[in-house]
Amino acid sequence: MSTLEMIEAAAKRLAGHARRTPLLSSPFLDEIAGRRVLVKPECLQQTGSFKFRGGWSALSALAPEVRARGVIAFSSGNHAQGVAAAARGHGVPAVIVMPEDAPRLKIANTRALGAEVVLYDRATGDRDAIGAQLAKERGLTLIKPFDEPQVIAGQGTCGLEIAAQAAEQGVTEADVLVCCGGGGLTSGVALALEGHAPGLRARPVEPDGFDDVARSLTTGRIERNEKLTGSLCDAIISPQPGELTFPIMHRLCGPGLTVSEDEALRAMALAFTRLKIVLEPGGAVSLAAALFHPGAVSGDAVIAVASGGNVDAEVFGMALEKHAD
Amino acid sequence: MSTLEMIEAAAKRLAGHARRTPLLSSPFLDEIAGRRVLVKPECLQQTGSFKFRGGWSALSALAPEVRARGVIAFSSGNHAQGVAAAARGHGVPAVIVMPEDAPRLKIANTRALGAEVVLYDRATGDRDAIGAQLAKERGLTLIKPFDEPQVIAGQGTCGLEIAAQAAEQGVTEADVLVCCGGGGLTSGVALALEGHAPGLRARPVEPDGFDDVARSLTTGRIERNEKLTGSLCDAIISPQPGELTFPIMHRLCGPGLTVSEDEALRAMALAFTRLKIVLEPGGAVSLAAALFHPGAVSGDAVIAVASGGNVDAEVFGMALEKHAD
Repeated sequence: MSTLEMIEAAAKRLAGHARRTPLLSSPFLDEIAGRRVLVKPECLQQTGSFKFRGGWSALSALAPEVRARGVIAFSSGNHAQGVAAAARGHGVPAVIVMPEDAPRLKIANTRALGAEVVLYDRATGDRDAIGAQLAKERGLTLIKPFDEPQVIAGQGTCGLEIAAQAAEQGVTEADVLVCCGGGGLTSGVALALEGHAPGLRARPVEPDGFDDVARSLTTGRIERNEKLTGSLCDAIISPQPGELTFPIMHRLCGPGLTVSEDEALRAMALAFTRLKIVLEPGGAVSLAAALFHPGAVSGDAVIAVASGGNVDAEVFGMALEKHAD
Repeated sequence: MSTLEMIEAAAKRLAGHARRTPLLSSPFLDEIAGRRVLVKPECLQQTGSFKFRGGWSALSALAPEVRARGVIAFSSGNHAQGVAAAARGHGVPAVIVMPEDAPRLKIANTRALGAEVVLYDRATGDRDAIGAQLAKERGLTLIKPFDEPQVIAGQGTCGLEIAAQAAEQGVTEADVLVCCGGGGLTSGVALALEGHAPGLRARPVEPDGFDDVARSLTTGRIERNEKLTGSLCDAIISPQPGELTFPIMHRLCGPGLTVSEDEALRAMALAFTRLKIVLEPGGAVSLAAALFHPGAVSGDAVIAVASGGNVDAEVFGMALEKHAD
């Protein structure tokens, strides 16, 4: 169970390690949205996404003798890099289990961050069995990507910063739109806002067709995605909300929103032109919802957590070609 | 004459208006440079460049009855947007005089920021005469782009932030590489560092072939560029260092550095991949020097002020195509 106290404790452990990302804005974005738009650019976080917060929080919460044996994670994406960098920062080994068809650059980056990358064949290998055996042999601790209290607490530190930064800018009532996969960031932010900025309300944003969280919030029980591939927003596609994250989101979040892939690409182009930041498609869905679905948002201001920027030059170039002026 | 006290006073006037940009880093950049690299991303400043600092400082220093009549600036670039946004923030009129062949997007952006744009014909028009007549008729105050004490003081606020942020990260001795045109940012940063971080030394960085400041520092007197066009780094090309900025730079700065246009594009691609920020070529020369001229830099750490990010999608796409992995 994650609590506000755990988030506040995580913030102390993250101080001096995670970056306090700023809160950005542009009058041009305000005009498109018809209200003030504040953007929390977690692409500027260490390793290019909010995942470093959760990784650092989880590692720093381990008992030193447990941590010293090392950690293991299953991920070919942002969680891999977050955990690898957090392990390096703690001077302990990290093993990252990835499918062997993961993008070469992501494998190389994770290795360059000091992690040992173990590849498996998606068709014939059993990821969980490989991981379990490695963990047992070496005494590694598994760091789950979202359904883990200290990971949720770490992501929640982003919410603490939003509460303080929004208040500095005079914003105390607003929807806080969060790019949502398994719900670690959304639930952590929701908990932080409940305690520090009760007028701010977290709302998950997902790509059309991968709206498991939005549907789960509607029905009140965990719903699954029918498919898990075929979206440019791959960073935030997960089978279903977590067993730990969903109850928090259900208690605290406003209704979910969804945006099209093309809207995500348009938001990426506008973030390039107006904010000078690099977003990946999955990290841009919150901004897309703020800009292109103003009727689904309430209040004079909206806050969008842009969760990551780990995007290939090809995909980024496509967003610019299609949508940049 | 600009002084540390003026910079500190400007910082108070800018508080809550200009953004305190963070200090970014990446282990991948450290590896390329062979030392710690800290990047101050002024592309994240209001209007996408540090120029907003100087614009706000100058406007906020005017007597209210003078300011109310409005301001005028000659610029088709970052200074135009900085002054326009600062005037809008003060609720006073701004006139920006631009050549009629300026990029349409820059004209549109400056107008969208509330300024009146007056176009002139580069071949037949006399920019200064047009400006002088407008200023006289309407009682407008001219805001010069760099050779103006309150503008230098405003840019110097960036140096105050660097001093504090570098110390937080344990860096008290380093070269601070600054993208340099007329020298407003470089001289302001140098003054701030002299007062607040004497172990940090400002050094101007220019594109090859447009190295008026580097040569001026070498000879000890103001040298001119032979040409003023033909560089992708157009944002930082100026005829010569300023009458006010040069003596400050001469007294305080280390030797100037120069980089090739291609190195600037490579730095843009690395800033995209590793820092998730958007830099324009002229705003990337400092990072290029830090990464690709390590022998010309001294110390265990280097700080690069990335001065702006107002770049067309075409030029940015070219940098990614040529140099992104």
